[in-house]
Amino acid sequence: MGIYILYISFLSYSNRKTNGFNFCVSSTLIIKTLFMTGYHTYKTCIEACLKCAAICNHCASSCTQEEDVKMMARCIQLDMECAALCYAAAQLMSLGSDKAKEICRICADVCEACGNECSKHQTEHCQECAEACKQCAEECRKMAA
Amino acid sequence: MGIYILYISFLSYSNRKTNGFNFCVSSTLIIKTLFMTGYHTYKTCIEACLKCAAICNHCASSCTQEEDVKMMARCIQLDMECAALCYAAAQLMSLGSDKAKEICRICADVCEACGNECSKHQTEHCQECAEACKQCAEECRKMAA
Amino acid sequence: MGIYILYISFLSYSNRKTNGFNFCVSSTLIIKTLFMTGYHTYKTCIEACLKCAAICNHCASSCTQEEDVKMMARCIQLDMECAALCYAAAQLMSLGSDKAKEICRICADVCEACGNECSKHQTEHCQECAEACKQCAEECRKMAA
Amino acid sequence: MGIYILYISFLSYSNRKTNGFNFCVSSTLIIKTLFMTGYHTYKTCIEACLKCAAICNHCASSCTQEEDVKMMARCIQLDMECAALCYAAAQLMSLGSDKAKEICRICADVCEACGNECSKHQTEHCQECAEACKQCAEECRKMAA
Repeated sequence: MGIYILYISFLSYSNRKTNGFNFCVSSTLIIKTLFMTGYHTYKTCIEACLKCAAICNHCASSCTQEEDVKMMARCIQLDMECAALCYAAAQLMSLGSDKAKEICRICADVCEACGNECSKHQTEHCQECAEACKQCAEECRKMAA
Repeated sequence: MGIYILYISFLSYSNRKTNGFNFCVSSTLIIKTLFMTGYHTYKTCIEACLKCAAICNHCASSCTQEEDVKMMARCIQLDMECAALCYAAAQLMSLGSDKAKEICRICADVCEACGNECSKHQTEHCQECAEACKQCAEECRKMAA
Repeated sequence: MGIYILYISFLSYSNRKTNGFNFCVSSTLIIKTLFMTGYHTYKTCIEACLKCAAICNHCASSCTQEEDVKMMARCIQLDMECAALCYAAAQLMSLGSDKAKEICRICADVCEACGNECSKHQTEHCQECAEACKQCAEECRKMAA
Repeated sequence: MGIYILYISFLSYSNRKTNGFNFCVSSTLIIKTLFMTGYHTYKTCIEACLKCAAICNHCASSCTQEEDVKMMARCIQLDMECAALCYAAAQLMSLGSDKAKEICRICADVCEACGNECSKHQTEHCQECAEACKQCAEECRKMAA
């Protein structure tokens, strides 16, 4: 971001005698857009988190209806943790919070743990959940980088 | 609330020649207080909902660690639904939303279903959850009345 | 759903001498699918709710950064209520809850109120939010029907 | 926790000739209790988080009804972030998640930021929120230690 602002300052200097006013307006817009992080900046990651949260809820509920629920116990536990974190991460990103990156780091860890557990089970909901967790972990890692 | 406002209007009329200004200020405060529903108006119900949400999360997680998880399947499912609704109800009440009563009505139903299921099991977390659900259902019924 | 079950019962009767076993398996699958409501049954509505929740959070946050915040006060309030309800509705649908329809009915009302308020403001986030609320209200009405 | 387990191992060795069976049962219970972190282990912190979440929602909503909303803009923003994080922290603690400490660390930071902002304003809801944020930050710091 620093580079952008330097570039804008430079332009500001070189243009000030010609179309100073127009430049001022457009540079303000650029700066506003640069600092107005939120839904549009993080859209891909927010969408991955929200999809993952919904599929984790679905997976947890579906696990309770399996024949061998005991085998699904760890999956249910991680689904619940993952859904809670994914939604919190999506909220903080949508709000443009300073803490968005930090929560995405934790979210990525939980998504990985949940995805690994889900991938052990052959049920459709677990396979689908493993895939959603994997994608969400990737997006959250990019965010947190 | 209509009655209060009528009463205030009447006072407003009868007092306008004497201490009109002071009355205006105090009636505005009364009206503001009447309409400023939220955390303090619904405190008991909000606290019951938040406690119930936390205990439902705890119960769901503890159920996954029981020997016979299959027996706990319905309990886990209802715990998850109940936690989601209790928190949403607490949020809408804290925000002073017009829809607080309506969500409390649904919340009461889910709390009852969850409490009934939990009361069938002898584990400490289920007994504790049954009690929290029962109290929350009662408070939500009062709110929705 | 009653019609489907009657139809299955009829098929069950007419086929029992021929390929009874296969039929039993497939009809069980059909019944399971019919009753296993959740993420896949409600996918369009869940996605509309989650998108609306995220955009409402974004709109509320962006409103606090406008020049005239006072003009945005009602918008912020309704954004917060709408985000809370949209996420709760998405959770209950993803969990396949019996109460999904009822919460969608309330959610539709709040989405409409929020969308109407947002549509009064010309800011990009409000216009975007008005659109997301309108779509979510429509999907929730279909769900609740 | 390591000390407890060493102590149990020592007891296990010294008692094995006498009442080995009873000891085994009770030590299993102790170990289970030690590892079964969740609602009861974190009760004080969970309650502080849930109270803070509710009061932040209330404060955000009340801020939108103040005469000078613009002055409250930062407060509304931080209230929304704080409510989201406090509830996520309460959820992960109630679920006994491995990530409870990490989210409490972020939560403490946001509670402090929100409490500092609220303490600048003389309105009752802001003063109440500042106090709730301060208490929640303290409990979260203890948890994260």
